[in-house]
Amino acid sequence: MVISPALQAYQTRIEAVLERVLPSVEILPQRLHTAMRYSVLNGGKRMRPLLVYATGETLGLAPEILDFPAAAIELIHVYSLIHDDLPAMDDDDLRRGKPSCHCAYDEATAILAGDALQALAFQLLTQADEPISAQQRLRMIQQLSIASGSRGMVGGQAIDLAAVGQALTELELEQMHIHKTGALIRSSVLLAAYAAPALVERQLIQLDHYAKCLGLAFQVQDDILDIESDTQTLGKTRGADAAAGKPTYPSVMGMSAAKRKLDELYLEAVAALEGLNAPLLLEIAEFTVKRVR
Amino acid sequence: MVISPALQAYQTRIEAVLERVLPSVEILPQRLHTAMRYSVLNGGKRMRPLLVYATGETLGLAPEILDFPAAAIELIHVYSLIHDDLPAMDDDDLRRGKPSCHCAYDEATAILAGDALQALAFQLLTQADEPISAQQRLRMIQQLSIASGSRGMVGGQAIDLAAVGQALTELELEQMHIHKTGALIRSSVLLAAYAAPALVERQLIQLDHYAKCLGLAFQVQDDILDIESDTQTLGKTRGADAAAGKPTYPSVMGMSAAKRKLDELYLEAVAALEGLNAPLLLEIAEFTVKRVR
Repeated sequence: MVISPALQAYQTRIEAVLERVLPSVEILPQRLHTAMRYSVLNGGKRMRPLLVYATGETLGLAPEILDFPAAAIELIHVYSLIHDDLPAMDDDDLRRGKPSCHCAYDEATAILAGDALQALAFQLLTQADEPISAQQRLRMIQQLSIASGSRGMVGGQAIDLAAVGQALTELELEQMHIHKTGALIRSSVLLAAYAAPALVERQLIQLDHYAKCLGLAFQVQDDILDIESDTQTLGKTRGADAAAGKPTYPSVMGMSAAKRKLDELYLEAVAALEGLNAPLLLEIAEFTVKRVR
Repeated sequence: MVISPALQAYQTRIEAVLERVLPSVEILPQRLHTAMRYSVLNGGKRMRPLLVYATGETLGLAPEILDFPAAAIELIHVYSLIHDDLPAMDDDDLRRGKPSCHCAYDEATAILAGDALQALAFQLLTQADEPISAQQRLRMIQQLSIASGSRGMVGGQAIDLAAVGQALTELELEQMHIHKTGALIRSSVLLAAYAAPALVERQLIQLDHYAKCLGLAFQVQDDILDIESDTQTLGKTRGADAAAGKPTYPSVMGMSAAKRKLDELYLEAVAALEGLNAPLLLEIAEFTVKRVR
């Protein structure tokens, strides 16, 4: 599925921003900085930054004020992937079709690269450009720190590890993913919303509901692809979740029910945007359910 | 060496603050939260929080406005210890006389506990109490994110790992420690200074110089203790640095020169405080060079 020129332009934009905010490989410690750049500048879909910009467009925000928030979210996402891939965690050698960070470098460097990317993410949010006020920046930092912490993304990963080999209910599975992937996807939309000078409460509720549906839809599709796609297309090891004994939507509710759930979440995400001028958010929702990797 | 009732009161204070800000073990994911509390509430010296409060006292600040900054720095410090102890890093089974986090729990939980503590540290700084302004809080977050990132603490750890088995000069060793331990000790003083409503530039320079000397003195003494103390007193494995082939001040410059350097740094730290009313900062400097663990 090909994305629109508007989203492609934002992809190009965030690549340039990431390139700019990451420490140069000339700066010491070089191996650490090289590893950070290797993992970040590695051709991701940039779904979270796209969500930041697309939400900003819906609210009439100029993209330049969202560059640092968009980059911050992506850095948090990449750090979580680096740590998730470690031998003590999911032990995955492949990420985006290339050796994962600890394979390309070493485990210690991968741990430290993740740690440094998290710190850099928060640093960037302190530097978000005017006209975002200090108060707005603090609200963003608070949102992202909660969403990425023990009651958000990291907590979701802990639940995920504990769930290996367990028989979860659909509700338990949903709780896990609301934390593990949902929290950061929701953050992407909320950070852009918090940057708006005069945010209408009703719009915030709509956007937040969209983001929650999108986050779950993303995970359901991820689980489906883990079974129906192949390693080369995915750029990560196909069937890794099933092989690791991880509960997935298809394993918990069956493949056809999982696909029905995906459709329902998509429709709910679209419905949440009613009355908003949000063509790019609609496109991201469509892309999420139709993507093949 | 016994510390004064004033510093003891701050130790008691920070223990209560840390106890309060850490997620309860009742909250999911329980194992993760239990591990976070295990590592943080583990009887550390709390040198960094003490520095925050002592700097605040010098500048006439009430301790309650420094509770969250003090806790934030300690959480960053503890997360770095958890990750440093991992098998892929320093591979140390003992921390503060008890099994390190990955031994008491498991590697994955230790990685995630560290990650979550870092996020919580930044979250706390967004919530620092009035009368600290939003602008001041942002400056604190920026300072701590830079000091703990790839050009600060994490960068120092990367340099440290790369230095194993290498013959460093005294200058290279100093560069490593300025990053690895110095950056966070400096942060402790700077965060308190940034909380002051009307900071005099000259005072900031004095305090910063004190902090730089103290950070290095701390590391020199650490290296000396690694050789001259014993495992039980240290609460961590004695001789671990030497056994790992890590360059230390005694190994690079000899034990008597290392002890002379320690004295010089102590005197320079004390001199930096001239004209300031800073009895607790003086005591921390004295404690740093005379401590036995």
